[in-house]
Amino acid sequence: MSPAKASTRRVLVTGATGFIGRHSLAPLQRRGFEVHALARSIPADAAPGVLWHTGDLLTGGARSLLEAVRPTHLLHFAWYAEHGKFWTSAHNLEWLSATLSLLRDFAAAGGTRFVGAGTCAEYDWSGNLYDETVTPLRPATLYGAAKASAFLTGEAFAKTAGIEFAWGRVFHLFGPGEAANRLVPALIRAHLRGESLDCGPENHQRDFLSAASVADAFAALCDREITGAVNIGSGKPRTFRELSDTIARLAGSRGDIRFGAIRDPGPETLVPNVDRLLGETRGEAHGEARWTPPASLEESLSESIAWWRNHL
Amino acid sequence: MSPAKASTRRVLVTGATGFIGRHSLAPLQRRGFEVHALARSIPADAAPGVLWHTGDLLTGGARSLLEAVRPTHLLHFAWYAEHGKFWTSAHNLEWLSATLSLLRDFAAAGGTRFVGAGTCAEYDWSGNLYDETVTPLRPATLYGAAKASAFLTGEAFAKTAGIEFAWGRVFHLFGPGEAANRLVPALIRAHLRGESLDCGPENHQRDFLSAASVADAFAALCDREITGAVNIGSGKPRTFRELSDTIARLAGSRGDIRFGAIRDPGPETLVPNVDRLLGETRGEAHGEARWTPPASLEESLSESIAWWRNHL
Repeated sequence: MSPAKASTRRVLVTGATGFIGRHSLAPLQRRGFEVHALARSIPADAAPGVLWHTGDLLTGGARSLLEAVRPTHLLHFAWYAEHGKFWTSAHNLEWLSATLSLLRDFAAAGGTRFVGAGTCAEYDWSGNLYDETVTPLRPATLYGAAKASAFLTGEAFAKTAGIEFAWGRVFHLFGPGEAANRLVPALIRAHLRGESLDCGPENHQRDFLSAASVADAFAALCDREITGAVNIGSGKPRTFRELSDTIARLAGSRGDIRFGAIRDPGPETLVPNVDRLLGETRGEAHGEARWTPPASLEESLSESIAWWRNHL
Repeated sequence: MSPAKASTRRVLVTGATGFIGRHSLAPLQRRGFEVHALARSIPADAAPGVLWHTGDLLTGGARSLLEAVRPTHLLHFAWYAEHGKFWTSAHNLEWLSATLSLLRDFAAAGGTRFVGAGTCAEYDWSGNLYDETVTPLRPATLYGAAKASAFLTGEAFAKTAGIEFAWGRVFHLFGPGEAANRLVPALIRAHLRGESLDCGPENHQRDFLSAASVADAFAALCDREITGAVNIGSGKPRTFRELSDTIARLAGSRGDIRFGAIRDPGPETLVPNVDRLLGETRGEAHGEARWTPPASLEESLSESIAWWRNHL
């Protein structure tokens, strides 16, 4: 193998057409990766310069693809994600098993660094600030349990196999293609139309990121050497009222948001400690990913508002 | 279906020839179960009255067997357990997947109660007293991680499937067939032979149970309605020195035990809270399994000593 060949970083992205995955290809290319994308079918608007592969991890696995591509990095987004069903679906069991098979096949094919997509639903939600090393994993849902299991068993396996394992925990995101009744699009549509909307308590607080920003954070996790669980967030949480007021200001119109009219199944504050991701903590840089969001919340919301203006 | 038929409780035991499993069949029969045993091969000394089935959960699964037997209860011991290798083996991934498939097939075949075998290695070992609901799951090994994953995902799946799920966490056990260099047999042999033995610190404390007692506790978990994780222990922990002194007294001879001569990889105290199993806590009975060990530690150690007298 020539020295030039040895230094090529090849990443295989699973779920490459998904809600987050579709935004990850360009940021990976910008970071110098040769990008291979795996999906059940190749999208019509496939990005240029990406090498597409079709396959279904649940039925065929990826062993032959991994042996053919021999990726150095694997960015694993693929999972069952059907809105309203994914929390309790038995498909979570299949995706847990498929994820562990994928990791094992990746290691066997010479891979060196695996990055997977986790969720805040892995944590015990009785706290406020969720910390990767302090907050216990005590998932309340099957989805959260299966993701926590993929993390626990995947990380432990990676140690025995001598490969790096990082696990980005996604908190609250929004972006094109999401269900219209989720919080951010519901607020955008209500404000754009000047309509009323029943909403959770005004003081409930979340760390919102666009799907594109989350995907950029995952590209950074691929690029860096940080291992273990890494919360993904901006570090700038907003209350539901702050979010709503920002959207109204950016939209230039205001609906009637009835805060507290509906129950929020989540806790009052569900906010990640993002010291590991951002590398900022009490003046002391111990974060290892050194990520900066590529867009502010206002910029990302403006994009979403523009999109929804055309999809009302 | 006749009323008599409807009240029959049929249990399928996996790993029925294993270190714990082989002791579980008689206690299940005593509790009124129709006992079906699954193993890769039927043992020569198969207990009478047990219905044996052969199969390998890793290669063929158990769907057809479950559909044929239609057990109401499943007691799942089968897992990779090769001494010295099981902590780090990639087989843990296969057994996690096989366990979740088994649980799913059991629910689909009309099963109502699943009891699985967990381990103290699922817990964060930085504490002292391990409590099912308080102590975080923070496994340090692949074996512990895979077992914790089977618990987390299995319990969450069972809730969605409407079946009961209990998970017995095994702490420190001993019994016939175990490796001679494990703590209890090593102490027994040293005392019987009057030889010297390098041992961990004298004040390290564990809750020791015989494999037969642990199996009896699992039979009780099948029999009762308790769900969730249940620590398995006697509630009477001993230090290494107390254990050694008891063995010397029962053996009637004494070896030279060099306490502190070797490092113990575990914490000083690794002892389960057994309130859930025994139903004793501060005078208030909230334990739900109401189990009593069928033998004292002294009785169990005497049996082991007698066995080792014939196997020195």
